[in-house]
Amino acid sequence: MSVITLLTDFGIADEYVGVMKGVMLSICPSVSIVDISHQLEPQDIAQAAYMVPAYFDYFPEGTIHIVVVDPGVGSQRAILAVHFRKHFFIAPDNGVLSLLLRDQKSDTIIEVNTSEYFLEPLSTTFHGRDIFAALGAHMACGTEIEALGCRRQIEDLVRLTDLTCQVTEKSELIGKIVSIDRFGNLISNIDTRQLHAFCQAEPSRQIHITIGSLTIRGMAKTYADVSSEEPLALIGSRGYLEIALNCANAQKQLKARRGDRVRITLS
Amino acid sequence: MSVITLLTDFGIADEYVGVMKGVMLSICPSVSIVDISHQLEPQDIAQAAYMVPAYFDYFPEGTIHIVVVDPGVGSQRAILAVHFRKHFFIAPDNGVLSLLLRDQKSDTIIEVNTSEYFLEPLSTTFHGRDIFAALGAHMACGTEIEALGCRRQIEDLVRLTDLTCQVTEKSELIGKIVSIDRFGNLISNIDTRQLHAFCQAEPSRQIHITIGSLTIRGMAKTYADVSSEEPLALIGSRGYLEIALNCANAQKQLKARRGDRVRITLS
Amino acid sequence: MSVITLLTDFGIADEYVGVMKGVMLSICPSVSIVDISHQLEPQDIAQAAYMVPAYFDYFPEGTIHIVVVDPGVGSQRAILAVHFRKHFFIAPDNGVLSLLLRDQKSDTIIEVNTSEYFLEPLSTTFHGRDIFAALGAHMACGTEIEALGCRRQIEDLVRLTDLTCQVTEKSELIGKIVSIDRFGNLISNIDTRQLHAFCQAEPSRQIHITIGSLTIRGMAKTYADVSSEEPLALIGSRGYLEIALNCANAQKQLKARRGDRVRITLS
Repeated sequence: MSVITLLTDFGIADEYVGVMKGVMLSICPSVSIVDISHQLEPQDIAQAAYMVPAYFDYFPEGTIHIVVVDPGVGSQRAILAVHFRKHFFIAPDNGVLSLLLRDQKSDTIIEVNTSEYFLEPLSTTFHGRDIFAALGAHMACGTEIEALGCRRQIEDLVRLTDLTCQVTEKSELIGKIVSIDRFGNLISNIDTRQLHAFCQAEPSRQIHITIGSLTIRGMAKTYADVSSEEPLALIGSRGYLEIALNCANAQKQLKARRGDRVRITLS
Repeated sequence: MSVITLLTDFGIADEYVGVMKGVMLSICPSVSIVDISHQLEPQDIAQAAYMVPAYFDYFPEGTIHIVVVDPGVGSQRAILAVHFRKHFFIAPDNGVLSLLLRDQKSDTIIEVNTSEYFLEPLSTTFHGRDIFAALGAHMACGTEIEALGCRRQIEDLVRLTDLTCQVTEKSELIGKIVSIDRFGNLISNIDTRQLHAFCQAEPSRQIHITIGSLTIRGMAKTYADVSSEEPLALIGSRGYLEIALNCANAQKQLKARRGDRVRITLS
Repeated sequence: MSVITLLTDFGIADEYVGVMKGVMLSICPSVSIVDISHQLEPQDIAQAAYMVPAYFDYFPEGTIHIVVVDPGVGSQRAILAVHFRKHFFIAPDNGVLSLLLRDQKSDTIIEVNTSEYFLEPLSTTFHGRDIFAALGAHMACGTEIEALGCRRQIEDLVRLTDLTCQVTEKSELIGKIVSIDRFGNLISNIDTRQLHAFCQAEPSRQIHITIGSLTIRGMAKTYADVSSEEPLALIGSRGYLEIALNCANAQKQLKARRGDRVRITLS
């Protein structure tokens, strides 16, 4: 039984996600469909780019991950089918896979150029239904990715810039808040590996994490390491530095927003 | 494997939808259940009536579509089981199927009058659980629709009025906004067929679409046909005239609301 | 085919619930997963405690019910696996099962003390993924609850207090609003059995239900028993006393809130 996951900006009030599932079950009745989120901000490609690496490899090998954040729907933007670390991805070529494909070469990147598997008539406004869902279901029932089009080089894909953190000349590691979860935890774009590399340079010094006017000294292991409502920094479940309050909402109390700068220093 | 879809005004915070699924899986363990939406405005029968035709036939033939927007729960309102274009529908007889059954004769309309398949004890407040879910699951596992009650004539059903657009004496086509999606796109009740018929009368003239103080000249094919944040009109994925802004929110920028009048003229 | 239900405070915007499902499908591909709600207030253990008894036994026997409202994640709080009335429950030992296990002895309560079935590496912030989802999936595919740890006595579990209603010395039955649903119906903690016992004492007298400045005389059977927008009290679908307005929102019109006192008297 194949699995398809869905990440979109469609919301759950309209019939759009349900219609995609109808299309998939019509083509491949045995498929198992899992919602990741449909609450991405409309047209927020970067938000999707950060989320894709956070969930895909918790699914069984061979899972097909459909990502539809597609402001260019109906225009000439390409559609990609990607094989990467034993998972499949179907997404518009608009940078939404930028972080996923950052470090490692993908096994196969296909630009879809056959309409054989599209729904007919093909709309110009809802490719989630007519293309993405249809392609995903055909792949779930055995269509090979190579049958969908021609190979593309990873270097030629549309890429988002400014996604990752940077070490400055003053030996600061500068990142930003890229996601705020339901608990108000502030998730940065500073990943474990980058943080370790930065700290390894001077292992005897203590790490300081600064956001706005708050500086946190040292890393915690879990929320309960500090008193209730106290701030802490830890490596969150995505593998990224996260700033939180124990049993309270850091977003509200720190008046934080996506895009806020996070500064790491050693002293 | 049978499919059941669910369209309700139950929301997703309470346990109501989960309980319906529990009932269905208890009766028919192999059923596949798809949420269309549970975010309909409470008791908004018209909103459901517009949505049903938009999703049902993307599902496999034989799918059972349960619609529970049921302000009359526990009263004497009838419950219908309908066979229509190779799909099944279970809904209260309150007009929620008005648009679905508008043009075409249904194959079979049954008024449910046997309680054999209801949950016991039967509550007076949650027929979604005790009747709709139970009936749907029994049908998914093979119960024939004719076994549920007696035939009804389509003319005798409760119908909503004022759902469709109208051509006035001044040769204007007058519709209204009936749905606003997550992107702020304004979806009208003017469908492709009506729009074509209206324009065919004078094919040499240009179509003007007016909402509030905005008049759009001509139809676009897709959102990206106009510059960013510019308004356009197109046939949306439901097959209805839609007013939108490219990569922006028409509802917010036009301060539009459900019920706003849409006027089509030729000049 | 086994069923797993999920009740969490994770929301649906983040990838957390999707990741849990990925973990479960990786371990037990045939499992069927049903969302009860992910909209519990963050860290609101009492809200979950009230909801668990409302849905579990509508599911097939053998269903595994995972409850993750877990402010103590990563600390030394225990994790429980419970067999109760032919259903299974996995939850932190923080009182979330207080109402479920109130009256009746559980067949088996296990404190999980083997990490054999946990995900590796084990995070300190997302046990929903690394422990609860993994345990649930292993149980769905046949792992016996006794293999997970040692038996606990029900008396030793963490319990919430102040969950149930009380009869006062003045012969009043005092409860409170513990849940407000999407329709604005006010659900109390006064259950059918307690209400009957209270009324049986003086069966000739009429019941009065008071919330704030409103007193309702007598119980209704269903919403439509009173005129539109009129208040009523009835036994709701959870089996608890509920205060509602017919086709209107009691929460808004009565300005009610969770925690508001409900007073039952006879006269």
